[in-house]
Amino acid sequence: MLNELSNAERAEVLTQALPYIRQYSGKTVVVKYGGNAMVNESLKQQVMEDIVLLRLIGVKVVLVHGGGPEISEMMERLGKKPEFVDGLRVTDKETVDIVQMVLAGKVNKTLVNLLENKGGRAVGLSGMDDRLIEAKVKDERLGFVGEITAVNIEPVSDLLERGYIPVISTIGCDREGNTYNINGDTAAARIAGALKAERLIMMTDIAGILRDRSDISTLIPEITVSEASTLREKGIISGGMIPKVECCIEAIRQGVRHVIIMDGRVPHSILMELLTDEGAGTMVSADRLGPKPGTEA
Amino acid sequence: MLNELSNAERAEVLTQALPYIRQYSGKTVVVKYGGNAMVNESLKQQVMEDIVLLRLIGVKVVLVHGGGPEISEMMERLGKKPEFVDGLRVTDKETVDIVQMVLAGKVNKTLVNLLENKGGRAVGLSGMDDRLIEAKVKDERLGFVGEITAVNIEPVSDLLERGYIPVISTIGCDREGNTYNINGDTAAARIAGALKAERLIMMTDIAGILRDRSDISTLIPEITVSEASTLREKGIISGGMIPKVECCIEAIRQGVRHVIIMDGRVPHSILMELLTDEGAGTMVSADRLGPKPGTEA
Amino acid sequence: MLNELSNAERAEVLTQALPYIRQYSGKTVVVKYGGNAMVNESLKQQVMEDIVLLRLIGVKVVLVHGGGPEISEMMERLGKKPEFVDGLRVTDKETVDIVQMVLAGKVNKTLVNLLENKGGRAVGLSGMDDRLIEAKVKDERLGFVGEITAVNIEPVSDLLERGYIPVISTIGCDREGNTYNINGDTAAARIAGALKAERLIMMTDIAGILRDRSDISTLIPEITVSEASTLREKGIISGGMIPKVECCIEAIRQGVRHVIIMDGRVPHSILMELLTDEGAGTMVSADRLGPKPGTEA
Amino acid sequence: MLNELSNAERAEVLTQALPYIRQYSGKTVVVKYGGNAMVNESLKQQVMEDIVLLRLIGVKVVLVHGGGPEISEMMERLGKKPEFVDGLRVTDKETVDIVQMVLAGKVNKTLVNLLENKGGRAVGLSGMDDRLIEAKVKDERLGFVGEITAVNIEPVSDLLERGYIPVISTIGCDREGNTYNINGDTAAARIAGALKAERLIMMTDIAGILRDRSDISTLIPEITVSEASTLREKGIISGGMIPKVECCIEAIRQGVRHVIIMDGRVPHSILMELLTDEGAGTMVSADRLGPKPGTEA
Amino acid sequence: MLNELSNAERAEVLTQALPYIRQYSGKTVVVKYGGNAMVNESLKQQVMEDIVLLRLIGVKVVLVHGGGPEISEMMERLGKKPEFVDGLRVTDKETVDIVQMVLAGKVNKTLVNLLENKGGRAVGLSGMDDRLIEAKVKDERLGFVGEITAVNIEPVSDLLERGYIPVISTIGCDREGNTYNINGDTAAARIAGALKAERLIMMTDIAGILRDRSDISTLIPEITVSEASTLREKGIISGGMIPKVECCIEAIRQGVRHVIIMDGRVPHSILMELLTDEGAGTMVSADRLGPKPGTEA
Amino acid sequence: MLNELSNAERAEVLTQALPYIRQYSGKTVVVKYGGNAMVNESLKQQVMEDIVLLRLIGVKVVLVHGGGPEISEMMERLGKKPEFVDGLRVTDKETVDIVQMVLAGKVNKTLVNLLENKGGRAVGLSGMDDRLIEAKVKDERLGFVGEITAVNIEPVSDLLERGYIPVISTIGCDREGNTYNINGDTAAARIAGALKAERLIMMTDIAGILRDRSDISTLIPEITVSEASTLREKGIISGGMIPKVECCIEAIRQGVRHVIIMDGRVPHSILMELLTDEGAGTMVSADRLGPKPGTEA
Repeated sequence: MLNELSNAERAEVLTQALPYIRQYSGKTVVVKYGGNAMVNESLKQQVMEDIVLLRLIGVKVVLVHGGGPEISEMMERLGKKPEFVDGLRVTDKETVDIVQMVLAGKVNKTLVNLLENKGGRAVGLSGMDDRLIEAKVKDERLGFVGEITAVNIEPVSDLLERGYIPVISTIGCDREGNTYNINGDTAAARIAGALKAERLIMMTDIAGILRDRSDISTLIPEITVSEASTLREKGIISGGMIPKVECCIEAIRQGVRHVIIMDGRVPHSILMELLTDEGAGTMVSADRLGPKPGTEA
Repeated sequence: MLNELSNAERAEVLTQALPYIRQYSGKTVVVKYGGNAMVNESLKQQVMEDIVLLRLIGVKVVLVHGGGPEISEMMERLGKKPEFVDGLRVTDKETVDIVQMVLAGKVNKTLVNLLENKGGRAVGLSGMDDRLIEAKVKDERLGFVGEITAVNIEPVSDLLERGYIPVISTIGCDREGNTYNINGDTAAARIAGALKAERLIMMTDIAGILRDRSDISTLIPEITVSEASTLREKGIISGGMIPKVECCIEAIRQGVRHVIIMDGRVPHSILMELLTDEGAGTMVSADRLGPKPGTEA
Repeated sequence: MLNELSNAERAEVLTQALPYIRQYSGKTVVVKYGGNAMVNESLKQQVMEDIVLLRLIGVKVVLVHGGGPEISEMMERLGKKPEFVDGLRVTDKETVDIVQMVLAGKVNKTLVNLLENKGGRAVGLSGMDDRLIEAKVKDERLGFVGEITAVNIEPVSDLLERGYIPVISTIGCDREGNTYNINGDTAAARIAGALKAERLIMMTDIAGILRDRSDISTLIPEITVSEASTLREKGIISGGMIPKVECCIEAIRQGVRHVIIMDGRVPHSILMELLTDEGAGTMVSADRLGPKPGTEA
Repeated sequence: MLNELSNAERAEVLTQALPYIRQYSGKTVVVKYGGNAMVNESLKQQVMEDIVLLRLIGVKVVLVHGGGPEISEMMERLGKKPEFVDGLRVTDKETVDIVQMVLAGKVNKTLVNLLENKGGRAVGLSGMDDRLIEAKVKDERLGFVGEITAVNIEPVSDLLERGYIPVISTIGCDREGNTYNINGDTAAARIAGALKAERLIMMTDIAGILRDRSDISTLIPEITVSEASTLREKGIISGGMIPKVECCIEAIRQGVRHVIIMDGRVPHSILMELLTDEGAGTMVSADRLGPKPGTEA
Repeated sequence: MLNELSNAERAEVLTQALPYIRQYSGKTVVVKYGGNAMVNESLKQQVMEDIVLLRLIGVKVVLVHGGGPEISEMMERLGKKPEFVDGLRVTDKETVDIVQMVLAGKVNKTLVNLLENKGGRAVGLSGMDDRLIEAKVKDERLGFVGEITAVNIEPVSDLLERGYIPVISTIGCDREGNTYNINGDTAAARIAGALKAERLIMMTDIAGILRDRSDISTLIPEITVSEASTLREKGIISGGMIPKVECCIEAIRQGVRHVIIMDGRVPHSILMELLTDEGAGTMVSADRLGPKPGTEA
Repeated sequence: MLNELSNAERAEVLTQALPYIRQYSGKTVVVKYGGNAMVNESLKQQVMEDIVLLRLIGVKVVLVHGGGPEISEMMERLGKKPEFVDGLRVTDKETVDIVQMVLAGKVNKTLVNLLENKGGRAVGLSGMDDRLIEAKVKDERLGFVGEITAVNIEPVSDLLERGYIPVISTIGCDREGNTYNINGDTAAARIAGALKAERLIMMTDIAGILRDRSDISTLIPEITVSEASTLREKGIISGGMIPKVECCIEAIRQGVRHVIIMDGRVPHSILMELLTDEGAGTMVSADRLGPKPGTEA
């Protein structure tokens, strides 16, 4: 149907995005990127297009990425066998080196290259660059799994100010020269908090928070921090959604305006969320809920 | 059909505009606005939307306007009867005062107000503000019809730099305190030239330059300065099109990259021209023709 | 006698202004201009000279103007008959259009042109430009007489910073595209307040506040806000002086240092007030009165 | 008569200076100060007032001073007897130390203090500060009389940019730690040249260049560089006027627009020259003479 | 012996470096880092100290690194067998991915981390970041061995300006999303040229250019571009030294002032070269040889 | 022994200073210079080297100097006999003129020249320049001995920002044109306080604060403000040390981080204090003592 659109109609579509563009112009949006949206090549192209478009219309976008599948693949090729304690991967020295290589060397630079090819100007960073993410051992049994101790947002701000799209690998460092495997959602929340971002978008492989996990029609489009606590007590938020929602709440506590748990499987979900009247997932907000996006003054 | 578009399709349309947005980001576009596009209320709303959208995606837009019909109407209400010499309106002191009032007081401020309501930040200027347009008597018989003697582009650049959309009434001034009625096309060409604009868009009530004026299918989409001269010699460019094409050529001579004689009756013709692969009218370029818009490196 | 002055004496006069020039260098002065000083051509020339001189010696001057007589004249020419409710002019749509045309199109641009010809660099603004003055209906019976709801001082500051003299027509706008007839004194007070001006000069057709309105020798040269309240209770401040003094008090409340109700009929009264030891009218100040001008540290 | 001036007349005088103030706003004027204007206390006060006034109205003023009489007085007090070779003072190490102390320590700081008390912001410099004036021995027989080898104008520009009035003692330095007695006129010419000054004012104890030195009515108000050469060949320019005129020519050759040999004995001669239609002395200009001051576009 | 130094002697050593520090303050120095200096842990620590010290004393240092041994090691672990054509490594898609991962992910971030721990502020870049190094296939038989087609120095300048030490992995990119294995010496030469660096330091495992390769006492301390050509014709420069010297010459041709082929096996060789009177290797300069470092004006 | 150091060892010494250089980079250090370190020519050269080195490694250094011996010498040469009241020198008008000439004209410019010759960029200031030090009569019996009433730090900050080393003569001024003899320690403390300096270094002719003045081994290396009070009550701080310690306390009270009473007779004592682990004298700090220099985070 898109192909049948006349150019006049295309122009009309552009102007209908006007109030949304106006709303985000000059604001900061942090995108946590991972999961299916990252593996599916066609979705990946669309996410990169969305990000470059946002940058061109004046949004300061920061891309924070993970890369679990690539890490696992490389470990296998190098004959490493994953081991888990309480569901968390044990990360020995050799493993953290692989994590670093794969994230900062492969995934990061591939994303940078894609953004450049879509017309953006991107520079990759890791937690080691200007000590962006400082960390310490979280649990001795897990090895180099890191707990964030400090975020130095200056290199990110410097790059944003110069017009670049910062692309960040979530690896941590300490002052003894160790590197750490850092949870991507946590890092994104801390970075968005340090930037006082307007939006933190958490791309996931699910539709959002559902009242009934087996029924997609029970999606909760908007939720406040205290409503989320209630839902958790009631067991509606459970399993892997718990740490994700905790990251959302932490981000809001640190000054992010709204966090969206977004369905990354939907094509152009970022643009839909930001530039149309339709969201794609669940928006978490502070208790004194601000106006709906698109209707703000 | 537009109403049937899903938001995902809308987002797709936005990303398809990416290469065009990238091309014009940070460039200057001067729009000469007049004729039907100015009288028809629905078209006017669309032109304002187009301009605000361009500004939000990083284009430095300047709006130069005329206002013939409003001037005539006010003259009639004040009991003034138009008089012509060689097809040019005789402009006595009283008439030029009416021109000034109507253009700088009514049309200009109404356009500024519309742009503001669409989400832009607009500031109106006339040729008197910081002596933007200095002029002298062109022909004693015509009274205060002005010939431009100097353009001081500084107030326009200052406003562009601060993020405003300058809206310019084409009235001239001299150092004796006189004001002049200035031809809008000429003023737009001079202003675009002084700004070394990427595009000067001349909104008109015709489809563009036609090989056969009775057959719209003979529209010439692109033409060089020397081709234009040839067409004029052959009489294909004739009548009211002659001064218009001369303005285009003058603008290119002063450093404007391309001038478009645009059909202002087509909805969203500005966005179509700049952000899709379809133009709306005739593009005049220097003899060593640059690449087509949208295909440039 | 002036003609007999030698150039050495002229130079001496200049140096005697030194302490005053020093005092106002870099400060902001808002001049509300109207009444006789605006109608009398010779006075008008002098006011323009005063303003350009202030700008050249480093004072940031803002000119806020009205234009009652020109409006009335144009209404008459267009066959409109003024109507009043409680002493306030009923302003229908047609009238507010005339107000806009005359103020923003005629008076404003004429003042800009005069300032330019005296050597200043002036740019005209109205309340529509970048929404400088937002307003709403004050009283349904009066039509488009506006009550100010917001002042966006940014376009004024931007112009001052670039070295221009902003010249402001007191018309208001709203987000529905309506325009409003705004009281000039109120607008000047709000603009001076937003700029935290050092001085607001209200040019009038009277000598200042008199203890006995029939005896000019009873002029009160300086008065505090609370003294003004007392005088009003006693009926010494009465009639048309009441709203004017209220504007002064509002301006001081918003951060203007001193307001002068100045006799605009006195030649060069602005320069006399600011650059000599003689004032021209009544200076209203906050209750904890600062030092006299010219004697400050 | 000045005392009889009303404040309105004073204001009128100020506005009559408008075209001149406009002309010099933002321009650089170097004043070489010495001779009688420096010794006579009342004249000194007036020169300081003139300079502070120029700075306040936006002129970038640089004060270059000598101090012959103070040096001689201090030498006498210290029991030093002047000695001359070919009319030039022999400057041994002890003498150059006295020159440095008197110029940089006494005269410079006294002038700085006076300018501050008149309301200016002044900072003193010598040729040693940031190596403003580098010099070498001019003639072995004369000891530490210096010939300028380089001028580093950066500290002067830095101070001007920050709004200060630089006050310069004409002492030179070399890279061995020696200091030099530098001719004040030469230093002023080099400094004005390096600043591409609009005016260099040489304050002297004579009326200017006279055709007949015994008849003040033969003063030459304006002269070009080649006319000056002719006059010198004819012997009309002779004696002490020769090196002074050579300095003027050198300054013009280096880019100064006009040099004025000014009668420093006339009160407020600087202001008269710059801010009225009357000069005070002889103006030297390049051969293709620019327009008269005050009549320029 | 160092341990016996008193602090007074240490301070004396520091001040003796003064003329050298002054010479390089604010200048750009590019260090190409590889070979033994990179493998030996103690030497690596010293190189990082040298670089951080240079940055702290105001030198703009850029670190360009290779990483051959780490690449070979990872290839072996992944079961890849090196293949060569004319002495150049065939780089298939899988190999270039390993190169990218090892250089940008492992070596780069490890160096960044070390510099941070020595007190510097470092940010890593690869040729993909803002398209720093664009390349194309050099020879079809070699696969993804790249020839540089363009260097975009802007991200490097931006980081230098903000006070960071840019650390660059020499990987290239193209607009189809391919990455390339780029020769480190060539990349360093192009980057130094684009920065118009004061010095390019090529760290190697040899003493420099020797007249007799078996006799270290025949080291040539300084050589011009044409002398280098002569030595090559004579066969004195031969083998692996030929492409290295060609890089030096290319760098000088592009505006680098001096290139040093430095013996990276000597501890603190960078500081010795820049901050003492002793070099460590061979300095290549343009034909009109500038003054020796440390003796310049 | 220094001569036997190899360049590699010299480089090693430089890198050992790294943590200290990092600590002071961008910080402000005020050096009060006087006494033996000023009279001994070799020590003077070393102090100048230390200061230039600090500036080159990014420390903002301010040099405040006295000049007692030179003043006395000049007074004697001019036949003036010192007179004292309560141990303070009576300063009549003639004496204060000599003080001004010697300090601002001789000592200041000689220091500026030395700093320049060591490679620094220095500009001299006195208390008169931009009214840096305003003062009033301290005690009628003492004449022009001044008590500081205000410090205008702006000219010092301006010079620091532009990269200059400000060299300050401690003479005061008032608004009547008088100059004052100002105690150097007091002036240095006030200037350091106004700059919120990281360190104020008081160069003296003693080893520091000693518990037993006859036994240098009783030197107190660090002391807090309240410990100093206790020591004074106990009589351990006595005599000329009392006013000096009071200056230290005043500086700390105004925001200086640490003050060092430094033994100026030790060569390179400034560099030893700041760039090695050995101090030279007594460090006075606020009561809640910060970490030792060199060990700070």
